[in-house]
Amino acid sequence: MKFTATKADLQSGVSIAIRAVPSHTTMPILECILIEARTNDLIFTTNDMEMGIETHVKAGIEETGVVAVEARMFSEIVRKLPNEIVTFESDENYNIRIRCGKAKFMIGGKSGEEFAYLPSVETDECVTISQFTLKSVIQDTIFSIATNENSKIMTGELFEIKGDILRVVALDGHRIAIRRVALKESFDPIRVVVPGKTLQDISRILSGEMDDIVRIYFSKNHIIFEIPGTRVISRLIDGEYFNVDQMISSDYETKVTVNRNVFLSCIDRATLFVREGDKKPIIMEISDQEMNLSIESQLGAMDETLDTAKEGKDMVIGFNPRFIMDALKAISDETISLYLVNPKAPCFIKDEGLSYTYLILPVNFVR
Amino acid sequence: MKFTATKADLQSGVSIAIRAVPSHTTMPILECILIEARTNDLIFTTNDMEMGIETHVKAGIEETGVVAVEARMFSEIVRKLPNEIVTFESDENYNIRIRCGKAKFMIGGKSGEEFAYLPSVETDECVTISQFTLKSVIQDTIFSIATNENSKIMTGELFEIKGDILRVVALDGHRIAIRRVALKESFDPIRVVVPGKTLQDISRILSGEMDDIVRIYFSKNHIIFEIPGTRVISRLIDGEYFNVDQMISSDYETKVTVNRNVFLSCIDRATLFVREGDKKPIIMEISDQEMNLSIESQLGAMDETLDTAKEGKDMVIGFNPRFIMDALKAISDETISLYLVNPKAPCFIKDEGLSYTYLILPVNFVR
Repeated sequence: MKFTATKADLQSGVSIAIRAVPSHTTMPILECILIEARTNDLIFTTNDMEMGIETHVKAGIEETGVVAVEARMFSEIVRKLPNEIVTFESDENYNIRIRCGKAKFMIGGKSGEEFAYLPSVETDECVTISQFTLKSVIQDTIFSIATNENSKIMTGELFEIKGDILRVVALDGHRIAIRRVALKESFDPIRVVVPGKTLQDISRILSGEMDDIVRIYFSKNHIIFEIPGTRVISRLIDGEYFNVDQMISSDYETKVTVNRNVFLSCIDRATLFVREGDKKPIIMEISDQEMNLSIESQLGAMDETLDTAKEGKDMVIGFNPRFIMDALKAISDETISLYLVNPKAPCFIKDEGLSYTYLILPVNFVR
Repeated sequence: MKFTATKADLQSGVSIAIRAVPSHTTMPILECILIEARTNDLIFTTNDMEMGIETHVKAGIEETGVVAVEARMFSEIVRKLPNEIVTFESDENYNIRIRCGKAKFMIGGKSGEEFAYLPSVETDECVTISQFTLKSVIQDTIFSIATNENSKIMTGELFEIKGDILRVVALDGHRIAIRRVALKESFDPIRVVVPGKTLQDISRILSGEMDDIVRIYFSKNHIIFEIPGTRVISRLIDGEYFNVDQMISSDYETKVTVNRNVFLSCIDRATLFVREGDKKPIIMEISDQEMNLSIESQLGAMDETLDTAKEGKDMVIGFNPRFIMDALKAISDETISLYLVNPKAPCFIKDEGLSYTYLILPVNFVR
């Protein structure tokens, strides 16, 4: 096979494809990018058996063919090439020769025969949203998935469509993050659990532009994300997701409204006295027009009083400061509201329109 | 004791002082910054027993006194304070109370009694150079010191003054880096070996501005760097440094002149095929008007031909690519010249005025 392409086009193709190259695998072929030169098309494919990526690269094809090349080495070579036209050739023994300017590289490739091609999936209806929206919905919830594999289903996010509303949910047993997005049309109900790793990779591939579009297709076992030139297909996580509606409630006894930035910097200061793995809660003492935050550990003590607006009862309640910080960082509103019932019941941070809802369980503490 | 200072002034003082806080020590007091409030002066002192730093911080002193505070915790607290006036107080039990805006911190301090104060050193004559010059001289040589402690003296740099010339030398047994700087006046001969770690820390404290001045004092066992508000004192390394003049020569059989950037990118591409700890040389084949660079390893092969100007014999010679790259990165000239004698003799990269000289030993290779 033989093709020419610019360094820039190759590099953007490789940087997308490499996201589905596993870092550890017992199948060396999966560490490769499969390069296919078709009559008028150059395609890079990768597959870590959970997620697969297929991306098209602008190229002049001189001879069609297929070869697999070790992904990290190929990516490094492309990155270090001069900014010129690249000529890529491979022979019948899969020896690869890359020329660019006066530089020549020879590396060994592999046959594509053992490569695990992407499954072909029946798709019909698709949900279209802006890349900006999908990217923020993922980034604003993904920190709430469980990171250990004890409960497989908690390592994914629920994607649920009812009518024209997409709801994305992540939870880890201590907190829940929910984002709601209005779609342009209505759809039949969909309820699937997408692996967290897939979503992290997708959010890095998405442009983040409001005007760029991503199409999402659902099948029984797969989800497919399509952006111009690139298709990402991922397995879904089997099993029934939690009944989230049962966990959230709109009753509250106390509502506190506070400047998000001031609240965030204050908790950030408090975390100075919390060491990794240490379970020291931050204690929030809510009274009229102010909230006192304090933390005490072997390392020292800190307290600070914030101006707030309060409705309802006074309350003293303790939280893992990191959970509050994660939620506050995901919100862009200038002021936020906390809804509380009692020191043993979950706290909600949510906006009027419920575009976001963060539920955080309180922590017991002794004074 | 009690003082007030701005967050910014405290932060810049802490960021300098913390450089002499050891990361591992059996003496916990050395992990502290000693804070001294004198009548009209606030001083932060740190000491890792090889290097000590004393820096003055702008402050309003309300009550004089001394307290030692764990450096990393103090630094983190200061960094996270709001941008306001900070009030620092300690009582007779060394309990420290820091207030800033509405935030209050309580941490435990220590008596300063066990603190290893900086040695007082007799100094008279001092060498004055710009912070920019000292910073670049260090950065452009420090990569050539030895990193293992087998030969203590190789972990430092020679600072040698003869007349009005300061020469700084680093070597590790495979290469030598030399920078020469003209001073404003002449001095009696000085020849001392300064620890590499001291120089690395100093280069981070220096501003890098041509107009800012650093004064350097020498004593039998110490070197002192003085910049406005800050004094850094370091032990010297004992022992006789190598006779560098014996190792360098101005004879050559071949002189090659090449564009520095082109040469550097080419070697950077070649290093793709060199794994950490692997001793694959890059082979330079020098002929008329061009130089072919090639490398071959289990990972693949690369070659590239560069346009050059050549005087003298053709030659084929091998080098550790990293040593050439380190030297090229330290040079800012657009073109550089290599001076070669034969494939077993060292190669020199140097400018006409000898402001820099890099000596690199070649590597044997089999073709």
